[in-house]
Amino acid sequence: MADKLVYYFGGQKAEGTAGMKNLLGGKGANLAEMINLGIPVPAGFTITTEVCTAYYENEEKFPEELEAQVREAIARVEAEMGSVFGDNTDPLLLSVRSGARASMPGMMDTVLNLGLNDESLKGLIARSEDRRFAYDCYRRFIAMYGDVVMGMKPESKIEHDPFEVLYEAKKQASGVELDHELSADALAELVVEYKDAIRKRTGQEFPEDPYAQLWGAVGAVFSSWHNDRAVKYREMNDIPADWGTAVNVQAMVYGNMGSNCATGVAFTRDPATGERRFFGEYLVNAQGEDVVAGTRTPQQVTLVGSRLWAESAGISEEERAKRYPSLEELMPEVYEQLEGFYQTLETHYRDMQDIEFTVQNGRLWMLQTRNGKRTAFAAFRIAVEMVEEGLIDKNTALMRVPPDGLNQLLQPVFDSEDKQRAIDKGRLLAKGLNAGPGAACGRVVFNAEDAEAWKKAADRGEKVVGVKWDNLILVRVETSPEDIRGMDAADGILTARGGMTSHAALVARQMGKVCVAGCGALQIDYSRREMRVGDKVVRQGDFLSIDGTTGEVILGAIETLPSEVVQVLVEKTAPPESSEVYQRFEMLLSWADEVRRLKVRTNADQPDQCVTARAFGAQGIGLCRTEHMFFEGDRIDTVREMILAEDQAGRERALAKLLPMQQSDFEGIFAEMDGLPVTIRTLDPPLHEFLPHTDKEIKALATQLGLPPKQLREKVDSLHETNPMLGHRGCRLGIVFPEITAMQARAIFEAAAACEARGIQVLPEVMIPLVGHVKELSNQRAVVEKVAEEVKGRTGTKFDYLIGTMIELPRAALTADEIAREADFFSFGTNDLTQTTYGISRDDMNRFVPIYGDLKIYDHDPFQTIDAAGVGRLVEIGVEKGKATRPDIKVGICGEHGGDPASVVFCHRAGLHYVSCSPFRVPIARLAAAQAALEG
Amino acid sequence: MADKLVYYFGGQKAEGTAGMKNLLGGKGANLAEMINLGIPVPAGFTITTEVCTAYYENEEKFPEELEAQVREAIARVEAEMGSVFGDNTDPLLLSVRSGARASMPGMMDTVLNLGLNDESLKGLIARSEDRRFAYDCYRRFIAMYGDVVMGMKPESKIEHDPFEVLYEAKKQASGVELDHELSADALAELVVEYKDAIRKRTGQEFPEDPYAQLWGAVGAVFSSWHNDRAVKYREMNDIPADWGTAVNVQAMVYGNMGSNCATGVAFTRDPATGERRFFGEYLVNAQGEDVVAGTRTPQQVTLVGSRLWAESAGISEEERAKRYPSLEELMPEVYEQLEGFYQTLETHYRDMQDIEFTVQNGRLWMLQTRNGKRTAFAAFRIAVEMVEEGLIDKNTALMRVPPDGLNQLLQPVFDSEDKQRAIDKGRLLAKGLNAGPGAACGRVVFNAEDAEAWKKAADRGEKVVGVKWDNLILVRVETSPEDIRGMDAADGILTARGGMTSHAALVARQMGKVCVAGCGALQIDYSRREMRVGDKVVRQGDFLSIDGTTGEVILGAIETLPSEVVQVLVEKTAPPESSEVYQRFEMLLSWADEVRRLKVRTNADQPDQCVTARAFGAQGIGLCRTEHMFFEGDRIDTVREMILAEDQAGRERALAKLLPMQQSDFEGIFAEMDGLPVTIRTLDPPLHEFLPHTDKEIKALATQLGLPPKQLREKVDSLHETNPMLGHRGCRLGIVFPEITAMQARAIFEAAAACEARGIQVLPEVMIPLVGHVKELSNQRAVVEKVAEEVKGRTGTKFDYLIGTMIELPRAALTADEIAREADFFSFGTNDLTQTTYGISRDDMNRFVPIYGDLKIYDHDPFQTIDAAGVGRLVEIGVEKGKATRPDIKVGICGEHGGDPASVVFCHRAGLHYVSCSPFRVPIARLAAAQAALEG
Repeated sequence: MADKLVYYFGGQKAEGTAGMKNLLGGKGANLAEMINLGIPVPAGFTITTEVCTAYYENEEKFPEELEAQVREAIARVEAEMGSVFGDNTDPLLLSVRSGARASMPGMMDTVLNLGLNDESLKGLIARSEDRRFAYDCYRRFIAMYGDVVMGMKPESKIEHDPFEVLYEAKKQASGVELDHELSADALAELVVEYKDAIRKRTGQEFPEDPYAQLWGAVGAVFSSWHNDRAVKYREMNDIPADWGTAVNVQAMVYGNMGSNCATGVAFTRDPATGERRFFGEYLVNAQGEDVVAGTRTPQQVTLVGSRLWAESAGISEEERAKRYPSLEELMPEVYEQLEGFYQTLETHYRDMQDIEFTVQNGRLWMLQTRNGKRTAFAAFRIAVEMVEEGLIDKNTALMRVPPDGLNQLLQPVFDSEDKQRAIDKGRLLAKGLNAGPGAACGRVVFNAEDAEAWKKAADRGEKVVGVKWDNLILVRVETSPEDIRGMDAADGILTARGGMTSHAALVARQMGKVCVAGCGALQIDYSRREMRVGDKVVRQGDFLSIDGTTGEVILGAIETLPSEVVQVLVEKTAPPESSEVYQRFEMLLSWADEVRRLKVRTNADQPDQCVTARAFGAQGIGLCRTEHMFFEGDRIDTVREMILAEDQAGRERALAKLLPMQQSDFEGIFAEMDGLPVTIRTLDPPLHEFLPHTDKEIKALATQLGLPPKQLREKVDSLHETNPMLGHRGCRLGIVFPEITAMQARAIFEAAAACEARGIQVLPEVMIPLVGHVKELSNQRAVVEKVAEEVKGRTGTKFDYLIGTMIELPRAALTADEIAREADFFSFGTNDLTQTTYGISRDDMNRFVPIYGDLKIYDHDPFQTIDAAGVGRLVEIGVEKGKATRPDIKVGICGEHGGDPASVVFCHRAGLHYVSCSPFRVPIARLAAAQAALEG
Repeated sequence: MADKLVYYFGGQKAEGTAGMKNLLGGKGANLAEMINLGIPVPAGFTITTEVCTAYYENEEKFPEELEAQVREAIARVEAEMGSVFGDNTDPLLLSVRSGARASMPGMMDTVLNLGLNDESLKGLIARSEDRRFAYDCYRRFIAMYGDVVMGMKPESKIEHDPFEVLYEAKKQASGVELDHELSADALAELVVEYKDAIRKRTGQEFPEDPYAQLWGAVGAVFSSWHNDRAVKYREMNDIPADWGTAVNVQAMVYGNMGSNCATGVAFTRDPATGERRFFGEYLVNAQGEDVVAGTRTPQQVTLVGSRLWAESAGISEEERAKRYPSLEELMPEVYEQLEGFYQTLETHYRDMQDIEFTVQNGRLWMLQTRNGKRTAFAAFRIAVEMVEEGLIDKNTALMRVPPDGLNQLLQPVFDSEDKQRAIDKGRLLAKGLNAGPGAACGRVVFNAEDAEAWKKAADRGEKVVGVKWDNLILVRVETSPEDIRGMDAADGILTARGGMTSHAALVARQMGKVCVAGCGALQIDYSRREMRVGDKVVRQGDFLSIDGTTGEVILGAIETLPSEVVQVLVEKTAPPESSEVYQRFEMLLSWADEVRRLKVRTNADQPDQCVTARAFGAQGIGLCRTEHMFFEGDRIDTVREMILAEDQAGRERALAKLLPMQQSDFEGIFAEMDGLPVTIRTLDPPLHEFLPHTDKEIKALATQLGLPPKQLREKVDSLHETNPMLGHRGCRLGIVFPEITAMQARAIFEAAAACEARGIQVLPEVMIPLVGHVKELSNQRAVVEKVAEEVKGRTGTKFDYLIGTMIELPRAALTADEIAREADFFSFGTNDLTQTTYGISRDDMNRFVPIYGDLKIYDHDPFQTIDAAGVGRLVEIGVEKGKATRPDIKVGICGEHGGDPASVVFCHRAGLHYVSCSPFRVPIARLAAAQAALEG
């Protein structure tokens, strides 16, 4: 421990600086910094964190040297503030607050008005000329001190605060309802009653000696470093216990000493929108807590803000000016000073500040400044504008924006007031997982075919079931690949089962659809086309609103607005110059592109998704799932014909019909991705996913195929699997039915040849899924290569192509050195890799994973953020072993993790070349990749 | 390459020895060795493997030095044999054979009778005094040479051998049917025709110069090292291509030169039973190939053997002595000599030998000796007896017995002749996987309840459905835990689905039941209680025989015999002294126990299994599955009550009823395992496995529980999982319902306390399944510890216990350092670990894994032998990381791999402390562990 235990601040000079956070805590360092900037701060001093540590090391005793240093500091405060601690004419009163290195808001204790006793009270009355005010301060101090220092807590959870009880009794006895109606005499009685209560319960007298009060308070603040709340908070936030807290002792100033007093909080920019405007609220003749508590309607600091507020609150200018004048109007000099200070502070800290101030008898005191919390939308705007203003550099700006927050710029939004009104009216039906951010509102439809049919009818301008259909909310227990077109037709997807990476959530995000998933409260009855939550019934065609950002499901319609960025970039319904948001978005991402090392690709299956993804900056396709194409139009019939074929010849007949369809799909995709690599995965899902399952559907298909329904049912049943996730899927399909792989390879290479002939540059990368053994890959590689060479030879076209594999099984990662012999690239399929590494089926996890959350067994959802210790370790092993065999092997990730910022950082560190994610997450990944590069 | 390219052998002296296999190949080295032992071998020489390598390195040309060395060796052979190569009075004829370092039977080419031409033919006629014999040799030589050296192969797969065609035409033209009826003249004509055919097809003359013949043959043998068959065989057996083959050139001797000639093969002990008796077959006036080909009935070498053979073939002693005399009778001097040689050879090689011999004009020549192939049964007997005879030491004996072969000693067996008769009569129905070795025969039953009821009735001596029931074959599409008691009631289990480690196979092996699994040809119709294969129908009650050693399913009954070892050791129906097999079994395993380091535990759930396992030498229980107990008696009702309870209170009521039942289970097990550790796994399978699924069963249960069937169906459906393997099971159950874990812990510890009070030493090890994150284990550990301390305190008993976990998920292995903080032991659950590492569900693998076998994608079934590169790597990582955190952590394996010899070797190398396997595999694991220790 250093010799210097106490750091004074006051007047124009502080002994500390902002750089001394470890020693003085964040609050102490910032107070010192403000003083050094020439900003008026009530004088005071900081007892260092080292003292806290020593206090705990020495059986909760203060170091001997402390007392002298504190007394010396008090003398300097007295001199600066012109009042004397414990004086009975003009007493110096103090606040005693904690202040740790890292912010731990509300976790530790505070004592205000310290120094008051029966003698100094007289001085406070004299100075304030307000007996009621002085007694109120006194009884507040006794209550706070009694609570924090003397242990006057409620004795059980159901008991009230003992001082609160006396206070309420006094109000009742006085026949008053509101606090400020209590008379000075009544408060004086309370002072006596409070002291009696302390004596009675603790057997100790309330200390009249100011220094005794001070040492009690300092000890209590140190002790609160180890209270339950603080310990838990530190555990949750990884704050070491041995950091300790500093204690800030500071002269009290009062915003409630009369009408020339005030108190307020302000942000140097709008914390919701990020707009560069001074934004603050204050109250005349009030204490800081009154502003925050919301018991009185706070007034706006600026005149502009005040007028805007009045307008939205429906208050006339006359009334506003009279009842709610701005600080700018009411105390113009103070306001001018404040404006200067906020500019000084923002410029100094180079970030948006959250400040607290008090006006005591017309004199402005700054009590606190810190970086202000803000919405992601605001963070983004502030970061970009501060670069334009020259306050920060581009890299700092990039680090200031939470990548996930970019989502807010891309999603349609509910009119928040309209939503609140709906909730107030009891229209909140249930809450689920906020799986696909954004807002969607439309009519409920319970199956995918209906959704598609209705959408088509609506597009033709027809009515369906007598109603003009517009937006649709598709409600399913869960979704499967055959629901794809229905999902595409809907604006929002709501499921009763499934997690954040369930099929519904995954596809919805890829499609940019709003999705609320795993909403367990819903009881869906397909046969009646209705769902229930308790006694509320929602029928097909009813209006429903789902908020994918919050997980709320609300009865009836709420208005939505498309985001500006999407209008400009994707829908192209607005010109770029019309949107500042768009311009800032492009600006920020262009900076990100300058520094990131990871490339960002997209997961896309259709040309329109390619267009969206390229608009968002995708540098290729990392995953094109061919099976989604199998559900388009009438193809599913041909697919089923292929699956149900009795022999290879039958399968090949059906595949021959599918070939031109797939080829045209790929041509469409190659055309949109001109010049960029396109990774196409061969067929992956188990074949039974393509077959009907209900008796009715089977009957229909049997009729169509001219088969007895019983025979078809048997065939469908024979394809049933106990654990389809671990069954006949992935490359296992292509190995058993090489003709399927051959058809897909042919479609890819014929499309490549056709595109090359049109002058389009194609870079196909054929990806074999679910490889666990190198020989699986060599088997499929041979099939693909044979077709490629045949197509090249026949068409005389030259195109380059790669053949690689998903690494999505633990064994693939563990034997990546062997697999790399046959692979030009690896793409880590971290969705399935997480499922197999954890042994958890995403489809079934909702029965226990939420409880794991309650029990804090998982730090995070491993399907959302990659699990570094387990799944991540396999990725590292895979990269390491793959590169050992083939140093130039291309490695990427195509699981949903590719769009998760924390996982992108992991991918950067693991040495991957690219991440791939759904189109709407491309910007997020670009920013996250930039942050990873800047951090690493 | 060394200077010496050719190694001569002949007379009493050879230049090579048995130790020169790498240079001379196995055959050449053994021929040399025999000479050195003073055994008469036709003289010859070996061209080294180095020449083969040089030949390939030098564009298929022979080294210059070779010719001189060969000519010199030929001269020595001529001198030794007293005949001259190419001579027209007494020509030396040669055989030219390949001989690689490792045996590659039949893969490469051979030429016999080399040295014959139109001149030397005269000499052969003169010497043999048999014109027909000489011409037959000549035409055989031309055909063989034409084929091997001159490329006279059939031109397509459907074409016949060109010489064969001429030969058949000649027989037809001569009006004869049998080969030996062709006259010398006819054969002489064929010689001309063969030569014409060669000239016509190849444009080349058949070479008359003996040396030209020789160089052609040597080159052809070298070339055959790279023929397709040989290349494939080497790939399959990991034989390096650069080893090359040696060429053995040896003087021909003839067993077909008259009635004082003979040829035969013999084993120094019985290769089927291992009995120490000289066992051989021979033919008079015949070539070696005649004995093997089976065209003539071979005669027995020994008189004893001959009489036994005649008896089983139903031939009178008179007829035998006349038509099929033994060599012992026919050529007593030769026999005496032969007997001496075989003893010399067996003593020299210290192993049972497979020898070939030829008698030419009354003179015995030995042509080959090698370690003889034998059944596991024979291997075991020979090994033990050779130790008793002082031929080998115990460790050598241990290495000689394939551990899996011990199974043959434990399983009931079919009467092989009766089975063959059945197959001959067309009663073979189908073939499946040989999942549970042994033979079972009984009446077919199609569901577990029937099996149980019928068994009970049979035990009471009652008839069922009018028939006296005895043994039962339970036939199911697949089995599940609820079939356990039915499986126990049956003698054999036959399933249509599932692999070698399917539930049926696993439980069957643990129970020691015969099982044929995954017999895909069966079409089972439960409702009609019948199954079909093609037009064959098997109905309930029909007799069926299944051979779990071969996978055969045979209609009707075949007699079975219980094994001697089981009679003595398990059934105790025979005294130990009655069975030599048993005594040898115990002997061998006692040797194994002396050297092995791995302990062997068993997987057992019931006291009777414990008894069996201890009889087989188990050193504890490595896995006691508590869920099997849940199906006993009426318990399933209480289990269902627990599962269907609406709340915790309801569950606890049901659990309270289960507690005494589980406690008494554990008491029974602890009592049988007195003094040995017992690892008990808490509840593992998903709860829906305990619920009924058919409408009828649900209705019955609903009535019993007083619930509306619809409500029950909904509850059952709500527990349905898409991928139950990856669902709500293992510790996830105990975490969501801690009261289940608490009940099981209480049952364990109350049982422990009760047993300790009875003087039984208990060592319970509580094992938490499916842990993937350390916090899952700490959660469950806390529940178990709390109960343990409570029981200890209340009962005042002191018992030690451990708490550990299965490592059966990749993540558990990868984070074993973290998990070890909470685990006293690890038990690798390699069944599930293989499923998750490969991403393969055992229940669903039959659709593609058999095809993988055909395509040689997997070297072996990873569920049978641990996959060292993937799953094994995880085991190694788990052991390494676990020991890093807790150096004394106990590590074992409880997957089915624990009973697989190759996997036991892996476990030994990975540093595990024990393996655990089903009771009947305990002896196998003991032996395998000994072999691992001896190897490592």
